[in-house]
Amino acid sequence: MSISPSTADTIARTVQVLAFDIFGTVVDWHGSIVREMQALYPAVDGDAFALAWRAGYQPAMAQVMRGERGWTLVDDLHRSILDEILPRFGLAHLPEAERRHLNRVWHRLHAWPDSAEGLTRLKKRFTITTLSNGNIGLLTNMAKHAGLPWDCVLSAEVFKAYKPHPDTYLGVARVFDVPPEQVALVATHHDDLAAARACGLRTAYIERPLELGAARPKDGTPQPGNDLHAKDLNDLAQMLGC
Amino acid sequence: MSISPSTADTIARTVQVLAFDIFGTVVDWHGSIVREMQALYPAVDGDAFALAWRAGYQPAMAQVMRGERGWTLVDDLHRSILDEILPRFGLAHLPEAERRHLNRVWHRLHAWPDSAEGLTRLKKRFTITTLSNGNIGLLTNMAKHAGLPWDCVLSAEVFKAYKPHPDTYLGVARVFDVPPEQVALVATHHDDLAAARACGLRTAYIERPLELGAARPKDGTPQPGNDLHAKDLNDLAQMLGC
Repeated sequence: MSISPSTADTIARTVQVLAFDIFGTVVDWHGSIVREMQALYPAVDGDAFALAWRAGYQPAMAQVMRGERGWTLVDDLHRSILDEILPRFGLAHLPEAERRHLNRVWHRLHAWPDSAEGLTRLKKRFTITTLSNGNIGLLTNMAKHAGLPWDCVLSAEVFKAYKPHPDTYLGVARVFDVPPEQVALVATHHDDLAAARACGLRTAYIERPLELGAARPKDGTPQPGNDLHAKDLNDLAQMLGC
Repeated sequence: MSISPSTADTIARTVQVLAFDIFGTVVDWHGSIVREMQALYPAVDGDAFALAWRAGYQPAMAQVMRGERGWTLVDDLHRSILDEILPRFGLAHLPEAERRHLNRVWHRLHAWPDSAEGLTRLKKRFTITTLSNGNIGLLTNMAKHAGLPWDCVLSAEVFKAYKPHPDTYLGVARVFDVPPEQVALVATHHDDLAAARACGLRTAYIERPLELGAARPKDGTPQPGNDLHAKDLNDLAQMLGC
């Protein structure tokens, strides 16, 4: 489902680089964490645990961006949040090795079923890169684990700023030496897309109704600000003639 | 040809990340530039031109590292050197568009015949990343053009330092959150390998006798400081059990 077929044609013709949000857009963080918690700590409510962990993410990045905390990799933000929430879930006793292992679940997230195929199709026509707040090591390990065929791994770590800071979106254009309108951000979050649009990038929304779990279906109503609106990455590939 | 089979076994067992030098090690910069000059400007001595362009590279990076010039992407260093040498080769008249196109030859360098296959084999067992002074855009475009299946594209651009600065070698270990001895640098230049070794990385030398052209065969005598000595990337893959 495209907002307008002619917009899809324009993007297919003019855009060089597709930059992908990762958590939620390409990989299923909620479902992956729930499944891993069920396997490791079946007494814990995995759904509530996944949501609590993720809920700490934006506030932790905001602290860094306000300068209250020095530049920090997302692996380390995830670990701080984990240490904070474990007692709430009866896991205060978890030893260091188990905390380290659990924290790396973000490196082992599963891709949505369409992601590897959709990216492989899109890669034939576009340069496909991550643009995630996740650190480079996390994104690289995840790609190997989930079979994601990135041309390039760009991260907040490269730009020393988290999305939605303009340095990240404009950083992609700068890295590839193209004007911002030749880069499209692909994401399932409207705030991310709006920030990219404000920098002059094109935008493609991906629905991902199950991002927060089956109990909390996400509203995927198309919003007119986005250039493209796709059900998943295969749908996006189809729309862009790949 | 391995310095010692037991060293190869140790590396295969302990190393997680292979970081590759690019110009000369993975791609044939000299031959690619000679061929492109023959096609575009057949009156010019392509061999001398390629050597002159490359000869400006180390001094330009040294200027940046001494602080005489701000942080500069290699694309821009290549362009400064190009502008400087064109008059010597009777090409002072080259218009801007042709200079821009010619400068991008570094994005279009051809891989050595074994590179794509060797990397694909090594990728099954190791995380394979670039570690080049070339900028991210250059390395990504080159990989698409030459079919190089990197897991990750690391560059001086990420670390804001050129090799042989320790921040680059140690930066790879930091990005992947492993100790330096779990990273091996793969390169055809002994000075690069020596600097990596001084940071605690393992090292693998690749011969590449034709790096400077058939007229200037490189001395590939094994040096005892390197952990491994391979003829090419398939030989390295074989040695490491891939």
